[in-house]
Amino acid sequence: MTDSPSLAGIIETSVYVDDLEAAEVFYGEVLGLEKYSRLSGRHIFFRVGGGMLLVFDGKNTRLPGDLPSHGAEGAGHFALAVNPNQWSAWKKRFAEYGIPIESEVDWGSGRSIYFRDPSGNSVELVDPAIWGIQGVS
Amino acid sequence: MTDSPSLAGIIETSVYVDDLEAAEVFYGEVLGLEKYSRLSGRHIFFRVGGGMLLVFDGKNTRLPGDLPSHGAEGAGHFALAVNPNQWSAWKKRFAEYGIPIESEVDWGSGRSIYFRDPSGNSVELVDPAIWGIQGVS
Repeated sequence: MTDSPSLAGIIETSVYVDDLEAAEVFYGEVLGLEKYSRLSGRHIFFRVGGGMLLVFDGKNTRLPGDLPSHGAEGAGHFALAVNPNQWSAWKKRFAEYGIPIESEVDWGSGRSIYFRDPSGNSVELVDPAIWGIQGVS
Repeated sequence: MTDSPSLAGIIETSVYVDDLEAAEVFYGEVLGLEKYSRLSGRHIFFRVGGGMLLVFDGKNTRLPGDLPSHGAEGAGHFALAVNPNQWSAWKKRFAEYGIPIESEVDWGSGRSIYFRDPSGNSVELVDPAIWGIQGVS
């Protein structure tokens, strides 16, 4: 093919929750993400670096509508890039909010910690060095 | 609080599929993503810009193991950043592979097209300008 289009990055990542209010506290206050927009009963969107975290109530987004339907059930997973100098600050933050760390992994090139959002999704904070990525926008 | 840790970006995005071989063709050949690693029956990981797309067989990742379990069912959703100069090249690519475009949306500040992966996940190509993001790493 003469055309060789390419994709520059992942710009939207979705997570499905059953309680948007609890998710707003978790993602906005505990993780400190910047809220971008909110549509009551449907979604809260957060800006994270050069991308967006889309927090949806899947009960709503599974219904037919103007946009293609979606809405997974059960535990999803995604990871947020952490500055490895801030591990202790994050652990302090989780302790303050009573959020248990489910697992901590040393991959050799960097570390991850895993915890759950209020809907049971597996959220990870990870040093991007484990993927050979030195920083993210 | 004196500590104010921050998160630099989303570094891992997961999608759950029921056929890893079909997903490998779709994400690797049709979308042209760079394969990073593969574990037969469990996952294929792709590097996309400054992040990773983790394609999992949820039947496997839902089982208890060394890492926290996860594995959503039903249609997930994520979006990949497209260079708006490449819309026609992408449409040509989808036509060549017989992949229907489910929806095309003009948001004013940019466009999106939506289609399905072989497992029914809603995948979007989007001009990052719709989020006020001019480019991604």
